[in-house]
Amino acid sequence: MTQTANSNLTEAQCLDANDPLANRRDHFLLPAEQIYLNGNSLGPLPVAAQQQARVLVEQQWGEDLISSWNKHGWIDMPVACGEKLAPLLGAAPGQVVCCDSVSINLFKLLTAALTLNETRSVVLSTSDNFPTDLYMVQGLQELLGEQRCQLRTVATGELSASLDSSVAVLMLTQVDFRSGAMLDIRKLTAKAHEVGALVLWDLSHSAGVVPLQLDSWDVDFAVGCGYKYLNGGPGAPAFLYVNARLQADIRQPLCGWMGHKAPFDFTSEYEQAGGIARFLTGTPPILSMGVLSAALDVFAGIDAQQLRDKSLALANTFLASVDAIDELKSLQLISPRDPEQRGGQLAYAHDEAYAICQALAAQGVQTDFRSPNLLRFGFSPLFLSHVDVVTAVQKLQEVITQQRYVEPQFRQRKKVT
Amino acid sequence: MTQTANSNLTEAQCLDANDPLANRRDHFLLPAEQIYLNGNSLGPLPVAAQQQARVLVEQQWGEDLISSWNKHGWIDMPVACGEKLAPLLGAAPGQVVCCDSVSINLFKLLTAALTLNETRSVVLSTSDNFPTDLYMVQGLQELLGEQRCQLRTVATGELSASLDSSVAVLMLTQVDFRSGAMLDIRKLTAKAHEVGALVLWDLSHSAGVVPLQLDSWDVDFAVGCGYKYLNGGPGAPAFLYVNARLQADIRQPLCGWMGHKAPFDFTSEYEQAGGIARFLTGTPPILSMGVLSAALDVFAGIDAQQLRDKSLALANTFLASVDAIDELKSLQLISPRDPEQRGGQLAYAHDEAYAICQALAAQGVQTDFRSPNLLRFGFSPLFLSHVDVVTAVQKLQEVITQQRYVEPQFRQRKKVT
Repeated sequence: MTQTANSNLTEAQCLDANDPLANRRDHFLLPAEQIYLNGNSLGPLPVAAQQQARVLVEQQWGEDLISSWNKHGWIDMPVACGEKLAPLLGAAPGQVVCCDSVSINLFKLLTAALTLNETRSVVLSTSDNFPTDLYMVQGLQELLGEQRCQLRTVATGELSASLDSSVAVLMLTQVDFRSGAMLDIRKLTAKAHEVGALVLWDLSHSAGVVPLQLDSWDVDFAVGCGYKYLNGGPGAPAFLYVNARLQADIRQPLCGWMGHKAPFDFTSEYEQAGGIARFLTGTPPILSMGVLSAALDVFAGIDAQQLRDKSLALANTFLASVDAIDELKSLQLISPRDPEQRGGQLAYAHDEAYAICQALAAQGVQTDFRSPNLLRFGFSPLFLSHVDVVTAVQKLQEVITQQRYVEPQFRQRKKVT
Repeated sequence: MTQTANSNLTEAQCLDANDPLANRRDHFLLPAEQIYLNGNSLGPLPVAAQQQARVLVEQQWGEDLISSWNKHGWIDMPVACGEKLAPLLGAAPGQVVCCDSVSINLFKLLTAALTLNETRSVVLSTSDNFPTDLYMVQGLQELLGEQRCQLRTVATGELSASLDSSVAVLMLTQVDFRSGAMLDIRKLTAKAHEVGALVLWDLSHSAGVVPLQLDSWDVDFAVGCGYKYLNGGPGAPAFLYVNARLQADIRQPLCGWMGHKAPFDFTSEYEQAGGIARFLTGTPPILSMGVLSAALDVFAGIDAQQLRDKSLALANTFLASVDAIDELKSLQLISPRDPEQRGGQLAYAHDEAYAICQALAAQGVQTDFRSPNLLRFGFSPLFLSHVDVVTAVQKLQEVITQQRYVEPQFRQRKKVT
């Protein structure tokens, strides 16, 4: 080990010793000898989630069967889970519910927003928004026609100039899934409101790592996923937020029985539930939802600013360590260098990104690859230490210096989100 | 015990001794001292599902984390799960996928069907169809306007007469959730096709208990849920079927990234996947889906006709036992007496239905109640025995004879499906 590496490690140990979130690592079941810089893609297994999965399956489903819908509160889970999440979003009660996927929830909120703002048709977004966000608008445009829904995409820098009176909804993702670049929700929401547009924010890469103040920023709508920094398990139910001031008259078209005001009256006319429950559609996947709910308990007593501080500190340690190593100059940072301008991840471009990602995995450092040439490193604040980060950079240096790349093996539908 | 009861029990034991499915009971973890006549609402826990839940959570998520999307086939699970189910539906490969909820899947297929049959707007259904089916059409009607989507509901007996050239889609549930009355899919599909209508069948109360031949009956579309007779766990993902002959040009509006032909290319234009995968939307709830997949393994090597024969035999034992007891004359059968006319359940009307349901539960017999006055008894063929059924009737006799009712305690959102 070089002297620089040694001194980095000592500094990291010192930072870890003063980390107020250090004890949360014990709340996770992490694989041995692995450094997991992929929590921005799939959060690891919380101890509470593992226990709750057993309880849900073996006791609640296995023993109490159908009575669990009431006895164990299954029927209230989507709303209860939303309320548990709300503080991390800066949302007062009654505005968040967990259900379906981000894609489905985007569809509900897009149609609700277009109906509220019915004299306009444009959904403005960025051309590099996460694909499913754009796809859902494309599907809606095809269904409703351009008279009622029209996707317009621009570069991020052109957003302000593109906000005009034709825009019904400004639909953006706060933290870019590739670069980690972070948009200013407060500022863009205010600008959208100035021209009479509603806003719909995708918080998939934000919730659980970036402090959010949806209420005080006057956000209209938001969605986000449960399986990244929220550690809710693979394909965990997503969430949605609808500002209380919009809820009085709002309707959404995916009006299944779980959004009915009295689902067990089995009436043939849909009458929507009061409040946020009207955004529910079908019977929720209770096992996945219950596990998400348990995962959210890990956040109890933690302020979102603590999460942010820790995540940025980890990222800064990583950045500084990479900067200090000559052999890593071939890595080109594509994330903003200014910590205020990015979310919880760093991304670097490299011609051999895929091979490096695989080689790192073989060395016990889990990162991910984004086509065509990006390496993404996620700095989850609840289970990573500064020593992890410094060690990961050492492995990265070894891999790149010794060109320990493995052959790429792409798969068409390979899941690497 | 009366002599009649004794002789019923002996006969039941004899039937059980000759039951080719008797050994499947060991595939389930049933609570001790309970008779579960509620598998039509929530199927019980299969041993394989319990084991798979642990593997999914503790090994795949916990140990292999993000790599499980490929390593453990998570990414292929919706299609693989559909293929596993297909034989029970009488469907050749490439036509079934597991995803989302029945409600969401109805929306996809309704819009797809209305687009295929775009010169027509009427969705014809029965007024007593399961509420969510009707609600989803109501939501679509509000979204698209009556010019493009118009719900028309009639009594079951009026269906044939109501099928005319205005009907775009005939949307029906094969087995009525209240009475268990069963429609003739083959006949009604042929009638619909004669007038140029497409058909969309809800098989929620059919799959896993009624033999289905979707391909040979030339059905266009179908949906169904995974948590009833398929035993996939609470809120298990639903399924959908799209006949191969319609797949070439078909599109659906909930076109999220999982339905893209190359989701991990992250292109900004939606291009739908070939085949049935285009009906996927967002990231699937892997824990719930993996458990469903394991539950489906219990059906391996079983012909759907065996399920049907056993289920009807159980129901007939129940019916004959109730008929034979004078004290049970207050129970009014509302299911068809002809076994060919009903699915896997029997329903009886009784003024004290709710109280009886509760009293039976206290005696270890789980049934369910449907407002305002129905008792439903489900005859799941994989884990029930004739002795269970005869014993349940004895308990029912005791409860009614001795008026051992408990006070009803309704809850507004009480889940009793």
